[in-house]
Amino acid sequence: MFIGKVVGSVWATQKEAGMENLKLLIVQPIDLQERETGQPVIAADRIGAGVGERVIVSRGTPARILFDNKSTPIDAVIVGIVDSFEVSE
Amino acid sequence: MFIGKVVGSVWATQKEAGMENLKLLIVQPIDLQERETGQPVIAADRIGAGVGERVIVSRGTPARILFDNKSTPIDAVIVGIVDSFEVSE
Amino acid sequence: MFIGKVVGSVWATQKEAGMENLKLLIVQPIDLQERETGQPVIAADRIGAGVGERVIVSRGTPARILFDNKSTPIDAVIVGIVDSFEVSE
Amino acid sequence: MFIGKVVGSVWATQKEAGMENLKLLIVQPIDLQERETGQPVIAADRIGAGVGERVIVSRGTPARILFDNKSTPIDAVIVGIVDSFEVSE
Amino acid sequence: MFIGKVVGSVWATQKEAGMENLKLLIVQPIDLQERETGQPVIAADRIGAGVGERVIVSRGTPARILFDNKSTPIDAVIVGIVDSFEVSE
Repeated sequence: MFIGKVVGSVWATQKEAGMENLKLLIVQPIDLQERETGQPVIAADRIGAGVGERVIVSRGTPARILFDNKSTPIDAVIVGIVDSFEVSE
Repeated sequence: MFIGKVVGSVWATQKEAGMENLKLLIVQPIDLQERETGQPVIAADRIGAGVGERVIVSRGTPARILFDNKSTPIDAVIVGIVDSFEVSE
Repeated sequence: MFIGKVVGSVWATQKEAGMENLKLLIVQPIDLQERETGQPVIAADRIGAGVGERVIVSRGTPARILFDNKSTPIDAVIVGIVDSFEVSE
Repeated sequence: MFIGKVVGSVWATQKEAGMENLKLLIVQPIDLQERETGQPVIAADRIGAGVGERVIVSRGTPARILFDNKSTPIDAVIVGIVDSFEVSE
Repeated sequence: MFIGKVVGSVWATQKEAGMENLKLLIVQPIDLQERETGQPVIAADRIGAGVGERVIVSRGTPARILFDNKSTPIDAVIVGIVDSFEVSE
């Protein structure tokens, strides 16, 4: 997983099977100093994350397991909203 | 998933089992300022995306689930055509 | 897998199904000279790794196999605490 | 998938189960201007690609589905030989 | 897959289920001129690769298929020891 900041939303009317009724957020990965780093990821959100919040994103088939009985072609999901993180370097 | 811009098409006569009748588009990933970033991805399209449109691309096994009963060796699929996206930084 | 150094922890109250009771550590990948390199990874830990320790992290579905009968959407797990590594270049 | 140019071959006598009788090619990813970009990939070829040809490479489990009933540990396969591609930027 | 050079070994006493009796090697990816490139990968070795040898590494679930009936959380395996490779650019 990685930590990112929710920076926006994306909407699509024309979409694939299994993509109905999904909230898709734009998540910008951040580093340990909370600087933006790398490319933004589009992740499905089912736990109510909002813009500005830091979230944990899981990717690939492990993320898709949450839609296990459906044909939803999702490769990234927000799996937690960060309360806090502590770095001791 | 990531957001990209459809920039072209690719054709192949000689191909693997399960690759018949697939429309393959070239998608250039873009960042939050819509600048091109990273390497282009070849994605299957079943929802009618066209050159110049911004699309959402899913990758890996989660993308392939759309071809679940076939042997199609596809690792990237366009899962949505972007109507709009909103970034609040 | 890759070798990284455990640099911290992350907490999330609001989370997805299957994320309960997981210890999530922040792992910074390191190179052969033990310099930090690349972006930090959030990995589940079930073997008692602590801050400052060097660990081996596995990713993707191979990591998730450890939670095989559950819906845990975990894409990275600490699979070993490094005793030593030897580089002969 | 990505587009690359076949630049060579690799041979290995000592190998894992399921790797017998596979033709392994070295594919250099190229960008939209056909410049080499990123690291070379070793891909299995079953459709007769040759050095100098541009090919489409699929990766991960979607690529391995072509060997579905075997234990072949292949994570990249050439799935098409490019006839032409068109970029309209 | 990618080609890399075996540069060392790593040992871990404290480890996850399914990690027993695995030989773990440190593999440094190399480019077509055999220069080191990118981050080192920890790969399981079952075919007797040694330090200094060039090897082919497969990653992800396709690599793990070699441990199919076990819970081994391995995401990279050495699948061949390179006899030679030929690049014609």
